[in-house]
Amino acid sequence: MKWAVISTWKMSFAGNVKAAKMLAEGGNCGDAIIEGVSMVEDDPGYSSVGYSGLPDRDGRVTLDGGYMDGDTLKVGSVGCIEGFRSPVRIARSLADKEFNNFLVGAGAEEYAEANGFEKRNNLTEGSYQRYLQEKDKIKELNSYDGHDTVVFVGRDVSGTVCTAVSTSGLFMKEHGRVGDSPIPGCGFYADSLIGGAGATGVGEDANRGTVSYRAINKLKEGKTAMQAAQETIDEIMERIENCRHMSIIVLDKDGNYGVATNCAFPFVYASDECEPTLYLATRENGKTSIRQIRPEEWSKD
Amino acid sequence: MKWAVISTWKMSFAGNVKAAKMLAEGGNCGDAIIEGVSMVEDDPGYSSVGYSGLPDRDGRVTLDGGYMDGDTLKVGSVGCIEGFRSPVRIARSLADKEFNNFLVGAGAEEYAEANGFEKRNNLTEGSYQRYLQEKDKIKELNSYDGHDTVVFVGRDVSGTVCTAVSTSGLFMKEHGRVGDSPIPGCGFYADSLIGGAGATGVGEDANRGTVSYRAINKLKEGKTAMQAAQETIDEIMERIENCRHMSIIVLDKDGNYGVATNCAFPFVYASDECEPTLYLATRENGKTSIRQIRPEEWSKD
Repeated sequence: MKWAVISTWKMSFAGNVKAAKMLAEGGNCGDAIIEGVSMVEDDPGYSSVGYSGLPDRDGRVTLDGGYMDGDTLKVGSVGCIEGFRSPVRIARSLADKEFNNFLVGAGAEEYAEANGFEKRNNLTEGSYQRYLQEKDKIKELNSYDGHDTVVFVGRDVSGTVCTAVSTSGLFMKEHGRVGDSPIPGCGFYADSLIGGAGATGVGEDANRGTVSYRAINKLKEGKTAMQAAQETIDEIMERIENCRHMSIIVLDKDGNYGVATNCAFPFVYASDECEPTLYLATRENGKTSIRQIRPEEWSKD
Repeated sequence: MKWAVISTWKMSFAGNVKAAKMLAEGGNCGDAIIEGVSMVEDDPGYSSVGYSGLPDRDGRVTLDGGYMDGDTLKVGSVGCIEGFRSPVRIARSLADKEFNNFLVGAGAEEYAEANGFEKRNNLTEGSYQRYLQEKDKIKELNSYDGHDTVVFVGRDVSGTVCTAVSTSGLFMKEHGRVGDSPIPGCGFYADSLIGGAGATGVGEDANRGTVSYRAINKLKEGKTAMQAAQETIDEIMERIENCRHMSIIVLDKDGNYGVATNCAFPFVYASDECEPTLYLATRENGKTSIRQIRPEEWSKD
């Protein structure tokens, strides 16, 4: 393939279309996937990323983002940043620094402000109402149901592979909690000589398994993208007791994708050979089953 | 071997002696290595960990810590925490939580205070004077010379492998900067079925290479601890342009150690077959050379 892009959840569809268009026109992989992730960050209709994100237990929307350039292995991350429009753009800018590539909390906010990143109150009326309605219930159940992270992995016509991530993390998380999303090797990884990967689900478990680098290492050993994703999920489920929701996306250096999951997981894939298409991955009989979702099914899944 | 423990830098010697004693008496691996790390955190004579740690660019001592239990793969981490005695003890307590295992900044401090962890102002007169003397010079040179992290990897008589880490990170780092030390897979990893590993050096590069899990994966493939460490350093130095200081310690599940480095790196190792001993690892002709340091040489290296 000349170019390809894969992204997590239905919410990434419009962003995937945009990224695919940029890649088809010969655009740079980093630019394309940042654009894709940003579209999700900006959409108030998606409650687990950026604007209108899931509040923490104090009712604050704190965000995590990560970016990796597979040519240089440069990484940039922000954790627990509040009050800015695009954590993924801030993360990308940090990847170019010689030091201080991962900033958290107040320090990340000082950096973002000093470098002119757009400020935004991401706690919308909708996310605050959801917080008020569910805060007592959630504390009781300790369910932490919301945890949909947007991850884009792309490969451009020059062969560069990059991965970008953004999330508000677990609904009702403790203040200061960081998941896998800004953690290189766990929430994301990219090496243009091998491929890229990213994770969504309960970040605590992804961190325990270093799942994104784990998948990349399998690609390096000669596994297909599909095998790399599946073996990663299988190993984690076997090794971690009561492993919770986890889904992995992988893109090899040639643009072939692999996906594995232990829950119902929609994702979007596009390449120069395939229009942006929504698929649903599920786990059946211990393996991942993937089928295309027709537009009329979108609202059900 | 029945038990073994390896730790980074000369500063870990007394802690290694203590951890070795606990392991020799049949103590739990986690308890032993936490004790070892804590002794370094508490010693004002060591300027890159805990009390009297290296200040950031604002003159604040913010600390990172991580802990992993190789039986369960449970991980706990704190990043950019200020005003507490022992980041590694806080990290360990977080490993037992179902969620919220990684806390940063103000949220980490709220957790530590609510859970009764001892507070301490880690900015001593000595560390503040060093800050004042070097702050303009360091900003000019962007040298970030101080970055010695204490890592302990242990294996107890029951076969449990754990890894624990603590650091104040880069001298004059940006406020909010987090290195590799609290990052599972990068600064540390442990799996009792395979072994444990940890890194010290410029955390930004360790994060780009996911170096600790990378070393563990090589053990899993059947490499010796020494091969796993060496191949990890070799790969990173080849793949990352101008890779900076990095040293890796590895302990396989049977207690054999491996060390590799691209700089002069003293470490301490003990087992039921060997008293706590200080070694110096250096890189010579592209490989790691290791020799015991006699007590009279200690002050030179």
